Amino acid sequence: MKTVSTEGYQTGRINDARAFFASCRALIDSQLDRLIPQEPEEPIRVHSAIRWSLFAGGKRFRPALLLATGQTFGAGADLLLRTACALEMIHTYSLIHDDLPSMDNDDLRRGRPTCHVKFDEATAILAGDALQTLAFQTIAEDENLSAHLRVQMIAEIARSAGTPEGMVAGQALDLDAESRAVTKAELERIHHYKTGALVRAAARCGAILAGANESELAAVTEYATNLGLLFQITDDLLDVTATAEDLGKTPGKDARSLKATYPALYGIEATHAHLEAVHRAACSALKSIERPTELLRSIADFIRERQT
Amino acid sequence: MKTVSTEGYQTGRINDARAFFASCRALIDSQLDRLIPQEPEEPIRVHSAIRWSLFAGGKRFRPALLLATGQTFGAGADLLLRTACALEMIHTYSLIHDDLPSMDNDDLRRGRPTCHVKFDEATAILAGDALQTLAFQTIAEDENLSAHLRVQMIAEIARSAGTPEGMVAGQALDLDAESRAVTKAELERIHHYKTGALVRAAARCGAILAGANESELAAVTEYATNLGLLFQITDDLLDVTATAEDLGKTPGKDARSLKATYPALYGIEATHAHLEAVHRAACSALKSIERPTELLRSIADFIRERQT
Repeated sequence: MKTVSTEGYQTGRINDARAFFASCRALIDSQLDRLIPQEPEEPIRVHSAIRWSLFAGGKRFRPALLLATGQTFGAGADLLLRTACALEMIHTYSLIHDDLPSMDNDDLRRGRPTCHVKFDEATAILAGDALQTLAFQTIAEDENLSAHLRVQMIAEIARSAGTPEGMVAGQALDLDAESRAVTKAELERIHHYKTGALVRAAARCGAILAGANESELAAVTEYATNLGLLFQITDDLLDVTATAEDLGKTPGKDARSLKATYPALYGIEATHAHLEAVHRAACSALKSIERPTELLRSIADFIRERQT
Repeated sequence: MKTVSTEGYQTGRINDARAFFASCRALIDSQLDRLIPQEPEEPIRVHSAIRWSLFAGGKRFRPALLLATGQTFGAGADLLLRTACALEMIHTYSLIHDDLPSMDNDDLRRGRPTCHVKFDEATAILAGDALQTLAFQTIAEDENLSAHLRVQMIAEIARSAGTPEGMVAGQALDLDAESRAVTKAELERIHHYKTGALVRAAARCGAILAGANESELAAVTEYATNLGLLFQITDDLLDVTATAEDLGKTPGKDARSLKATYPALYGIEATHAHLEAVHRAACSALKSIERPTELLRSIADFIRERQT
């Protein structure tokens, strides 16, 4: 089994989200590098495409949230790391497929050509497909976890990634909404699945791996539901207010393509007020947890204030 | 948990492949129907697309092979059925994605419009993605299996579906070969992964679920490797010799698009000789198994003689 040293992982002593994300990132990137076939290995083009999209400077938000939640409930990185990487693989596969011409048709992501632009559409489809497969394989082969925990992780992530209550369902609802006006309830529903489901899975997987009890898991789920919403609202706001250089993608694209966004439905001012309410709800959910939740609270602050 | 009655499953007494396939089919279709979200459930379009492709009159070859191998080593259908359905979901997701314009660009499959023609490209991509997720979820949630067996099944199927040694790797090698001449060794390699890997997984999963020992598993793997090749060779031959009505797709398409095929490389006559050699190898592999292998042998005969 491929393993990675977690010696440099000092996040146990970090309660500040920015420092925590920085600390996690090298660890996650290093483990991902070990899990993905090297480029000289055939089929070279697909492996290059996977690496192009997976190592594109992503924030590693989902795996870091899994590590943060796991740490909050007392689990070490060795128990959490491969599931965290699997989540990032699922997230990256979804970005590759969402960017395709027949989906969101994006040429640029994180300041670089998207996968199908850099390579070609067929390769991008296969790279996404292979990444999804590898995510589940990574958990199934994780010898640090009992078979029971592996099965729980796979079921949790599959439910959050698929349909009818996961990420693919959200993307389908979002595509369906492009050609017509959506209500606020529909917008919440789209995000609850499209971004929310995987963020919830990240927090829940960390808590389950660390042995959190039912009421703790419920609180974590509530926290993560609001965190996912917070992430989406700041995403929508950044699309309106940020420059292309900040974003690494074309700003204002969502508004132009009539995509359902918070500013489009609520206006900028009311969106900011909504952002604050959702942030309060996230922090409030943490109160019932009798553990040191400073890091999780700091992550909510960090998301609220993010500029990229 | 959704279950299905296996009362009508009388395959334990069937040693003829044609009758066995017929007997399995209703069982598999009925279980698949229970595992896939119903069409009225949102997102409706994706669920309709999944059902369009999954219930398109497929032969259910892979799940039936899993059931046949499991039965050979003494397992009942209740132990095998969900993993069998998961394999069919993986196979169907691959058909949906392979048919896309940027891949093989097929408009017709089994006499009906392909998924992206009937619906649209975005829906077809999402339907394939969701089916892959559901395959792994189906096994992870299979309460008839121990956690240990579920993990084994997921790892086995993931390795056979992904890269560098699975179906996606085979499809990538195949696409790469389209624009140039390939050697016989390359052709075998493409098929070893593209169709072979999932056929091997079907037979191996059945044997593992039934508790076959290491040497039995090795023999089953050898049998299935040749069976997969047999399937591919007859596929290539049918593309040359059959009519559109027989195939439900445009014949001769592979030859026209310069796809690597056995008749193109070997000529028709030598391909038939190769077919016989591979059939003999499949049957020979069964000899070391001290179980009633008549059904597995009949399946090899059935594939050799198939006309669709």
